[in-house]
Amino acid sequence: MTADINWAAFAASLGDIPTETDRALVRQKSRDFYWYSPVLKQQLRGVSADIVVAPRDEADVIAVIRECFARRVPITPRGGGTGNYGQAMPLRGGVVLDLMGLNTIHPIVDGMLRVGAGAKLGEIEARCRPLGWELRMFPSTRRTATIGGFVAGGSGGVGSINFGQMREAGTLLGARVVTMEAAPRVLELRGTEVNRVHHAYGTNGIITELEIAMAPAQPWRDYVVAFNEFAALARFTNAVARADGIAKRLCTAVDAAAAAYFKPLRDVLAVGDSVGLFLIAAQSAGAFEQALAVAGGRVARRMTEAEVEDTGAVPAFEFTWNHTTLQALKVDRDITYLQSRFPGPDCLRLVAEVMATYGDEVPMHLEFIRVDGEVACAALPLVRYTTEARLRAIIADFEARGITVFDPHTYVLEDGGMKQTDPAQLAFKREADPLGLLNPGKMRGWDERETAA
Amino acid sequence: MTADINWAAFAASLGDIPTETDRALVRQKSRDFYWYSPVLKQQLRGVSADIVVAPRDEADVIAVIRECFARRVPITPRGGGTGNYGQAMPLRGGVVLDLMGLNTIHPIVDGMLRVGAGAKLGEIEARCRPLGWELRMFPSTRRTATIGGFVAGGSGGVGSINFGQMREAGTLLGARVVTMEAAPRVLELRGTEVNRVHHAYGTNGIITELEIAMAPAQPWRDYVVAFNEFAALARFTNAVARADGIAKRLCTAVDAAAAAYFKPLRDVLAVGDSVGLFLIAAQSAGAFEQALAVAGGRVARRMTEAEVEDTGAVPAFEFTWNHTTLQALKVDRDITYLQSRFPGPDCLRLVAEVMATYGDEVPMHLEFIRVDGEVACAALPLVRYTTEARLRAIIADFEARGITVFDPHTYVLEDGGMKQTDPAQLAFKREADPLGLLNPGKMRGWDERETAA
Repeated sequence: MTADINWAAFAASLGDIPTETDRALVRQKSRDFYWYSPVLKQQLRGVSADIVVAPRDEADVIAVIRECFARRVPITPRGGGTGNYGQAMPLRGGVVLDLMGLNTIHPIVDGMLRVGAGAKLGEIEARCRPLGWELRMFPSTRRTATIGGFVAGGSGGVGSINFGQMREAGTLLGARVVTMEAAPRVLELRGTEVNRVHHAYGTNGIITELEIAMAPAQPWRDYVVAFNEFAALARFTNAVARADGIAKRLCTAVDAAAAAYFKPLRDVLAVGDSVGLFLIAAQSAGAFEQALAVAGGRVARRMTEAEVEDTGAVPAFEFTWNHTTLQALKVDRDITYLQSRFPGPDCLRLVAEVMATYGDEVPMHLEFIRVDGEVACAALPLVRYTTEARLRAIIADFEARGITVFDPHTYVLEDGGMKQTDPAQLAFKREADPLGLLNPGKMRGWDERETAA
Repeated sequence: MTADINWAAFAASLGDIPTETDRALVRQKSRDFYWYSPVLKQQLRGVSADIVVAPRDEADVIAVIRECFARRVPITPRGGGTGNYGQAMPLRGGVVLDLMGLNTIHPIVDGMLRVGAGAKLGEIEARCRPLGWELRMFPSTRRTATIGGFVAGGSGGVGSINFGQMREAGTLLGARVVTMEAAPRVLELRGTEVNRVHHAYGTNGIITELEIAMAPAQPWRDYVVAFNEFAALARFTNAVARADGIAKRLCTAVDAAAAAYFKPLRDVLAVGDSVGLFLIAAQSAGAFEQALAVAGGRVARRMTEAEVEDTGAVPAFEFTWNHTTLQALKVDRDITYLQSRFPGPDCLRLVAEVMATYGDEVPMHLEFIRVDGEVACAALPLVRYTTEARLRAIIADFEARGITVFDPHTYVLEDGGMKQTDPAQLAFKREADPLGLLNPGKMRGWDERETAA
């Protein structure tokens, strides 16, 4: 598609917009954390852009789109590159658009923040906390991930125990999106319209700016707790998740077989400990610890946020969500993971059944979140990977048990968290990317439409 | 019991502690909003203390207790007197202890506030808001109710959609309680121990100080919304209650037959409107209004808190919880109400069935709250009162349908919200009030023990 492009001439056409064509650097910026999945690691091995372009503002974005559209060059937008499904990997080469330069953080008004797509989540949090506001939710990659990448490629994370998934009405308030056309348009999506581009991997528009609702900030206590038995930890974590009087931001339970990989916590954990990770409001620390003692757990580490910062300790949230897997991968390259949700009030019985079936092959990891006003039990268990066939068999067995699986071993939108083509996203792609040049190959609904046409 | 007391001599024994013996003023301070219930209105008609004593601090409280204990004079503690079940009415005369002088508000630390029992909830809110904190929950009588009265006689209210009932671990952090003994002890209850005196009507200790967890403050929008059909309003209110992305503090749905009594809203409502009352975070106003339009409702009144304050408008919350009943009683003295909870995900079907059965006799009023991490449908429907037998028949029918009723037509703890004797409260009464002099006649478990002994 891009074989006949003269990239030096292309770069020159962009004037003073920064570009990078060094093969190693371009390959580096063409990757995300796809290698969490041995399946994607295999499939996406050789993927690389031809050039990385780093716009400094929206005018630059528009200029790049014009040049790309004219030459039919695909664009794959990218933030911090911390996704796990190859979201930001350019399957058909062309331009990787590094949006980290669009990092303006505007003044916050009544908890509503307008922010450039490239602003890092950690910087947004640091900027807003002294003003009394904090992120409603963030991924465990908060230090390096951008808000644009999180909105385009993520779904929830730390904070979802309060605010549910990002797609719930009220969290994404607005998105400024540039279309992939000869004369690019700048569209302002408002309210639920933002879901047209949320979790669409940048396939149907380049997000340049976002408006998000924040949460009122409060001081958090960073907890690592330990239990002798995972079942007791799971019950405790579930109870904390449902305790309306205990203000929290994170409720994670990790089985001993997975927590054994938590090298930075070795000094505070004993062999065989199952580990809970929590962010608990300072005002709720007393009630939390009282409940912990009754449940038979112990505090392994308790820190204020300032103590975490000052000592350089790894914060609790960097053992949760996809960082649970990352901590394991640092020790054992044969580890991968699943994304799933255990249904109903009986979720912990089903968790116990799965653990009894798979034992050490699938070390359990639970994240409690809210879904439609109710507490739900999400799970990102580790998997000791042998073959893709075995992985698929485990997924099929989970589904047969009534567990919903959001397959992280695919780069196709519909086969992962989306489960099906989102008609609003597909319709918006027709409008905003008529030639299918944005992050091509990721939206099956579009490709099938292309084939059918 | 107190017939042979010389009250002038008693008052003199208290030195400079303020007292009041004027019959009219004493009767006034011996009442609460018990007259919401025609049953209690009848039963408690002649109730009055012999004297009102108004301690200025804890030392005064101890001095009063010494004198009362020596003479076997009962004490009924009182805050703002805004209860609805005769909580603060002295069935056996003696002293009404007006605790509103104990109104110190200490500096707030990390969202934890230590405060005198007599501090008004409205003043706590006003003092803490500029510091970034607000009450987790409050009754609709916020202007005049005290924190001590709310803790001793209440259970939840505005804010319970986020934090559940007050008794959930983590909201009541501590209580300082003086015992009714020859040598009164001052006890510091911590954490879940506070439930020994919470909702015990002051029958087992005099609360002088409380420590409570606050919520991080945020700007709220005060909404009155209108629907042509109650069923559509109920569905919308339920949906908002469950919408994790919409930050709120109040979710109330009032049927047209009840909303017809909302005189202060006549200018913004049409005849036949069913009315929703909401407090929605400023950042969530857009999502709220978008959902409202989709549901077929309209904004009847939208104000900032400053606008409510500046214009002297009646805030939305003063049409909710027990103020729904109060607004009706201002117009029609034959109105009373029920307190109930409609169970399960099918709650709205049951609501519709009850409405179909009772029609205009029981105008519906729903309050959505959290219970054990899930959204629950509480209801305080109005009742057009005819006879107590009919009222009891309605309650029995509600219960037969699986609706939990917390009978507001009784002054006995166990027959109202408590449903049964709380063993921890009874045990604490043995310890803190061995002679049964505190608010006598309210705790059935104690009286039956007395009879049995």
